[in-house]
Amino acid sequence: MDIAQELLSIARSAKESSRSLAVLSTDRKNRVLRIISTKIAEQRAFLQAENEKDLSNARAQDYPRAFIDRLTLSNRVLDEMIAGLEEVAQLPDPVGEVTGMWKRPNGLLVGRMRIPIGVVGMIYESRPNVTADASALCFKAGNAVILRGGSEALHSNRALVRLMQEVLQNEQIHPAAIQIIPTAEREAVIQLLQLSDYIDVIIPRGGESLIKTVYEHSKIPVIAHYKGVCHVYVDAEADPSMAENIVLNAKVQRPGVCNAMETLLVHQSFAEKYLHSLIGALHRAGVSLRGCERTCRISNGISAATEEDWSTEYLDLILSVRIVDSIDHAIEHINRYGSMHTDAIVTNNYASAQKFLKEVNSSVVLVNASTRFNDGNQLGLGAEIGISTSKIHAFGPMGLNELTTTKFIVYGEGQIRA
Amino acid sequence: MDIAQELLSIARSAKESSRSLAVLSTDRKNRVLRIISTKIAEQRAFLQAENEKDLSNARAQDYPRAFIDRLTLSNRVLDEMIAGLEEVAQLPDPVGEVTGMWKRPNGLLVGRMRIPIGVVGMIYESRPNVTADASALCFKAGNAVILRGGSEALHSNRALVRLMQEVLQNEQIHPAAIQIIPTAEREAVIQLLQLSDYIDVIIPRGGESLIKTVYEHSKIPVIAHYKGVCHVYVDAEADPSMAENIVLNAKVQRPGVCNAMETLLVHQSFAEKYLHSLIGALHRAGVSLRGCERTCRISNGISAATEEDWSTEYLDLILSVRIVDSIDHAIEHINRYGSMHTDAIVTNNYASAQKFLKEVNSSVVLVNASTRFNDGNQLGLGAEIGISTSKIHAFGPMGLNELTTTKFIVYGEGQIRA
Repeated sequence: MDIAQELLSIARSAKESSRSLAVLSTDRKNRVLRIISTKIAEQRAFLQAENEKDLSNARAQDYPRAFIDRLTLSNRVLDEMIAGLEEVAQLPDPVGEVTGMWKRPNGLLVGRMRIPIGVVGMIYESRPNVTADASALCFKAGNAVILRGGSEALHSNRALVRLMQEVLQNEQIHPAAIQIIPTAEREAVIQLLQLSDYIDVIIPRGGESLIKTVYEHSKIPVIAHYKGVCHVYVDAEADPSMAENIVLNAKVQRPGVCNAMETLLVHQSFAEKYLHSLIGALHRAGVSLRGCERTCRISNGISAATEEDWSTEYLDLILSVRIVDSIDHAIEHINRYGSMHTDAIVTNNYASAQKFLKEVNSSVVLVNASTRFNDGNQLGLGAEIGISTSKIHAFGPMGLNELTTTKFIVYGEGQIRA
Repeated sequence: MDIAQELLSIARSAKESSRSLAVLSTDRKNRVLRIISTKIAEQRAFLQAENEKDLSNARAQDYPRAFIDRLTLSNRVLDEMIAGLEEVAQLPDPVGEVTGMWKRPNGLLVGRMRIPIGVVGMIYESRPNVTADASALCFKAGNAVILRGGSEALHSNRALVRLMQEVLQNEQIHPAAIQIIPTAEREAVIQLLQLSDYIDVIIPRGGESLIKTVYEHSKIPVIAHYKGVCHVYVDAEADPSMAENIVLNAKVQRPGVCNAMETLLVHQSFAEKYLHSLIGALHRAGVSLRGCERTCRISNGISAATEEDWSTEYLDLILSVRIVDSIDHAIEHINRYGSMHTDAIVTNNYASAQKFLKEVNSSVVLVNASTRFNDGNQLGLGAEIGISTSKIHAFGPMGLNELTTTKFIVYGEGQIRA
């Protein structure tokens, strides 16, 4: 069987399984998630042995340390996976929820009911923990999922999917509910993106080249999870110690993730009084700074920012700093250079806070809080499958609700249209 | 300027205008809509003269009568357009609505606020009334719109857009908020679909070849408005006179639209008693029937349905009829042959009604009401831009809310992530 044939058969069986998944009871879904959680705990040694195959390949190819870290199924990662499955089992089932119901003048009762999307194609990095998390979220929301993790994690992902499929089979659930593309060939992704008769949405997580490839080739709707060029704007009337706490947290607490700050914007009157000391704190935390002309004049050890810096996602202990004349100037900068992912203002001025919340249309906009809160768990959605940077369907963190759509349901008494 | 350059300039200016549209007050938006409504009334003669150019071209090319009807800016169509603009002005402004707000354990207040999508690319049939309706809805929802109507309506559409742009300009609003692609070239659509840096969503309305072309070429998210193969299922315990009313209304009241019934499914025990008389009523209403083997045995004058008939959207006084053994058989048929657009059950059995509502995942599912109610106005959303058959973002009628997305807003007091 060639790869196109195999993908077609995967997609067809996924569609078939999605019909029965859509009507599975909440109790059965939760039971399955808990059994998978238990099996992962029992099969720890097997999963780590399979993971070791991926790890030794990656080491042989001299992948960077951070890459190897994300690839590793350590005991801690497996513990989190086991806890994560239990957590998804505890979340409310979105399927069948009626989000609103109203009566029409002709007596029709009209409501909107959450239903599964159907079949989700998930394309992601070489992080085997995502394999379990994404499968659990899709399954709980009543969707079949076709997984395509980074090729470097293929052994780990296959082992995890085999384990989940065994549980499905034992529980008399169509095992095509969770499937993986069994090859590392890049061509397989292109083929997958053609199967719009069977797959309802593609969720790609990753860098620019992956997202571009997906948009280039997909005949299926795409909800992209792309980069975060996130800003903190420190307003004229910001509290200096709150500003320092938020700026340090946004940059330093976990610099390698999409909701970390990449550019600091500072109002000139705050800058005059406090920027020197803020720069000192950032330097002490090990952050390299790239500043605008005025910033470079305030302190030593800052290199000049280039035009490119303002739109760069460093994912590292590097920060661009710019002094702005006004909040309008700050908002203009964010609209021009940002990626509309996560942006925060620090201020004690009521009008500035409201203006920033209203005029910055990023997926998460915060007043007096760290950008690091752009996360499904932190915002109260429960577990997340990722953070959408597409404005369509879901903008920002995607939890269980965002893995559903709604249909209209209508209770009539024989009404016809005049 | 070649067409690619011109489209780029249209898309860029649309993006630019969308920033100011997003923060326009409700009062100003409503004022503009009402002035446009007045201007259309004043410019009736001019609009009809421009429309006449399109009509004489279409007549010379022997377009069918129904096509010419949809192309005509009659006094009635203009009256509806004028009333429609006033109606959109009266609808609540979705922009800035906070759809929910909750408090996190760390004290963060987290909410979701509706914001415009940004720039909408609207591709539609040769119906100039859609030009005004779609522009009004996009404008009220704070979006810029780039219109591409059927080439046969180009004179009418250009006249309407010129009129709307004059009003925008007089009201000091960026006239790029409402633009039209000034050429009938098909290549222009392909070019438009590449401009993902400036356009946020493409809404195509039309037949199979248009929708396919759009999915084939678009690098922009697509919300398709595609065909309706809609069913009425008459259950064993249906009231025969209610069934007849609904079946006739769903087929005959306006056969040329996407929410008209194309296939009638009848439970065998209802069929034994009442199908003969129901077929008589359909025949008297001028409907040609194509039946399954059992249906053909019940009455004369029914041709045998082919496999293809079950998935055909006739848009005409033609109906496929099938007798089914059970509600499960009916649901199976709908899942296999339907387009998940609009499906109705007629029944007095509580369990059947609930089962049908739960297991049929079409965009609108009705109990004891005509399929013709799948319409934004009828379901209480106000005016609609169309009926989405994409499961992503909006499934079913798209009103003003569906032309927005949501961002998360967060009110903090200095919170940082641990």
